[in-house]
Amino acid sequence: MTPVYLDNNATTRTAPEVVAAMLPYLAEHFGNPASMHGPGTVAARALIAARAAVRGLLGAAHDDEIIFTSGGTEANTTAIQAALAATPDRREIVTSAVEHPSVLSVCGWLEQNAGVRVHRIGVDPEGRLDLDAYRAALGQQTALVSLMWANNETGTVFPIEGLAEIAHKAGALFHTDAVQAAGKVALKLDAAGVDLASVSAHKLHGPKGVGALYLRRGTRFAPLLRGGHQERGRRAGTQNVPAIAGFGRAAELATGCDLRPVAALRDRLERGLLKRIGQVRVLGDLRDRLPNTSALAFDFVEGEAILMMLDRAGIAASSGSACASGAMEPNHVLRAMQVPFTAAHGAIRFSLGRETTEVEVDRVLEVLPPIIERLRALSPFGAGQTLAEGAQ
Amino acid sequence: MTPVYLDNNATTRTAPEVVAAMLPYLAEHFGNPASMHGPGTVAARALIAARAAVRGLLGAAHDDEIIFTSGGTEANTTAIQAALAATPDRREIVTSAVEHPSVLSVCGWLEQNAGVRVHRIGVDPEGRLDLDAYRAALGQQTALVSLMWANNETGTVFPIEGLAEIAHKAGALFHTDAVQAAGKVALKLDAAGVDLASVSAHKLHGPKGVGALYLRRGTRFAPLLRGGHQERGRRAGTQNVPAIAGFGRAAELATGCDLRPVAALRDRLERGLLKRIGQVRVLGDLRDRLPNTSALAFDFVEGEAILMMLDRAGIAASSGSACASGAMEPNHVLRAMQVPFTAAHGAIRFSLGRETTEVEVDRVLEVLPPIIERLRALSPFGAGQTLAEGAQ
Repeated sequence: MTPVYLDNNATTRTAPEVVAAMLPYLAEHFGNPASMHGPGTVAARALIAARAAVRGLLGAAHDDEIIFTSGGTEANTTAIQAALAATPDRREIVTSAVEHPSVLSVCGWLEQNAGVRVHRIGVDPEGRLDLDAYRAALGQQTALVSLMWANNETGTVFPIEGLAEIAHKAGALFHTDAVQAAGKVALKLDAAGVDLASVSAHKLHGPKGVGALYLRRGTRFAPLLRGGHQERGRRAGTQNVPAIAGFGRAAELATGCDLRPVAALRDRLERGLLKRIGQVRVLGDLRDRLPNTSALAFDFVEGEAILMMLDRAGIAASSGSACASGAMEPNHVLRAMQVPFTAAHGAIRFSLGRETTEVEVDRVLEVLPPIIERLRALSPFGAGQTLAEGAQ
Repeated sequence: MTPVYLDNNATTRTAPEVVAAMLPYLAEHFGNPASMHGPGTVAARALIAARAAVRGLLGAAHDDEIIFTSGGTEANTTAIQAALAATPDRREIVTSAVEHPSVLSVCGWLEQNAGVRVHRIGVDPEGRLDLDAYRAALGQQTALVSLMWANNETGTVFPIEGLAEIAHKAGALFHTDAVQAAGKVALKLDAAGVDLASVSAHKLHGPKGVGALYLRRGTRFAPLLRGGHQERGRRAGTQNVPAIAGFGRAAELATGCDLRPVAALRDRLERGLLKRIGQVRVLGDLRDRLPNTSALAFDFVEGEAILMMLDRAGIAASSGSACASGAMEPNHVLRAMQVPFTAAHGAIRFSLGRETTEVEVDRVLEVLPPIIERLRALSPFGAGQTLAEGAQ
């Protein structure tokens, strides 16, 4: 049986076109783009083409606003540290409680080690940012706002354009972690007024190990990696030419890609599961959500157990749990949304991709209901919570 | 005419075996190694195998001493910042004047922004470290010594084992930038008593965009990239599985690889050029040098001009110049070695690889002498310095 891969928010298959775009720069045109000779020049040209393609995907105004990094985590780390270094008279960061761990960890580190004050804005039960708290947190001390474009766990989309405008009124720089949004919703970074943004290639059918930091022209900056002229002195280290070439191709493939068919499959999956299984809730903001993501919380079951049984049936998904001090606990996103305990433990994220088929979705609809039924029968909490009862 | 690539210290061709090792993890086994399902498990297994191979190449004692990074620059940056963070009561770094720019830049930044005192130990005209100055610089304030195993420009090898021992007597941690040494000389990091070491895959026929930081068990550490459990919490971010798998294969190919044939070709090239061209000197420590590197300084010519004419003849090499404030100046390594002005401007580095052939070397022996002759005839300094005269 062919495996069903519904974990595209974790990583995606490198598209065949992307692999084809990478291969020449591994084998034949392997030069260092910093080298002043033929092989170096061929490699340098690949960077120019890829930079233009990524600029196009992101809706940036200029190619030189794209800084290639080793991925989303490096881009997030660089963005936050650079913004703080650029505004030494401001020592506060405003972020949200549902950001990616790479953002929250850097903020926490700066809080503990560099005297930076961090405001973590909460969300409502649908994952929407508390706008009043956001406005109240901003002030003359705010160096940076860092808010994700779309949430990796629930797909909830934040209204970035408006949020950036509010940040700018307070004189703060605005960074968005757009790792989950890029390739799934149209990013118009220039129009949105964003100052810095992070993206990762492997979330949009590009290769792992490469991402980009968008840096609006004129934004003050300090590099995280120093010691080379690469990326206009903003990110030292030999550029990963094959991966960057692949990222460029992936950006081309994703630009303008119609994800309505993916959304239709996601809705088919969600509606089908809600029809067949009782006591399940959809997590996130249903009015503004990534087209590919469905986070579902099944009462009275353990997400890890669902995941394992799905895996045994050849279906790859993700749970809403994270290992915290040895025990599986609902992750910080579900906690911030105040998802009830009995549901948060049974959260499963399905993240579809442009390769997902109706046959695959229907396979989940066939396989998952009996899994939930079996687990609920075993659960001390769920005893008596049968499918039939739940479905009423 | 097939191009002759003699710039292997800049980057190397990704070996076909390495590309073959990468491909399955791009196309088929594309899972995220952090994911708790089948595709994730397959990816995670690739990391285990690669880590063991890199441990083998480096002569480390334990697989968990290998932290995969995005390359040498990230490894160097992490090592230096981690060592300082681990020893908050010591605020000095001892390094050399001939280190890679990624080391010198981090040190310079810490000096200017974090109140760290940096000692840059000089070298003699052969590139050998001033041992008296090294001993004198060490003290109770030394947090870290960072000295390269082998110099990228001249191939000069530092006596790392002894240097580490001296550092430890002062209670300092010892880091070595082994980017140029790995795969060219046997590294026995465990036996050498090194605490931290940096390597890069693309210098040893592995892919770009991946490297490793060796961290001896028990060494205190602080990550540069935070926010994920990857690499045992020491380097956050989705692991670059295809590149790491390729790095592992490259490490296997390099382990125990006999470079004596490469050294013989390098010697053939060097002897041949010295015989055919006058007023040329070999740079570096001829008693202890990488087997593949030959840095030559031709009096009364510009290295950039030689490079361009070699490139036109299909030969890729590197010059000893770096662009400093708009003008081409001898790089910091040649300046530290006090190579005379007239020679340093005409420095060329040939770095051979295990693919280099005798035919290629002989092609350089045929092509380069007339290039030097022509350039010297054009030079205001070299007028009258004919080949014949020089060769006497």
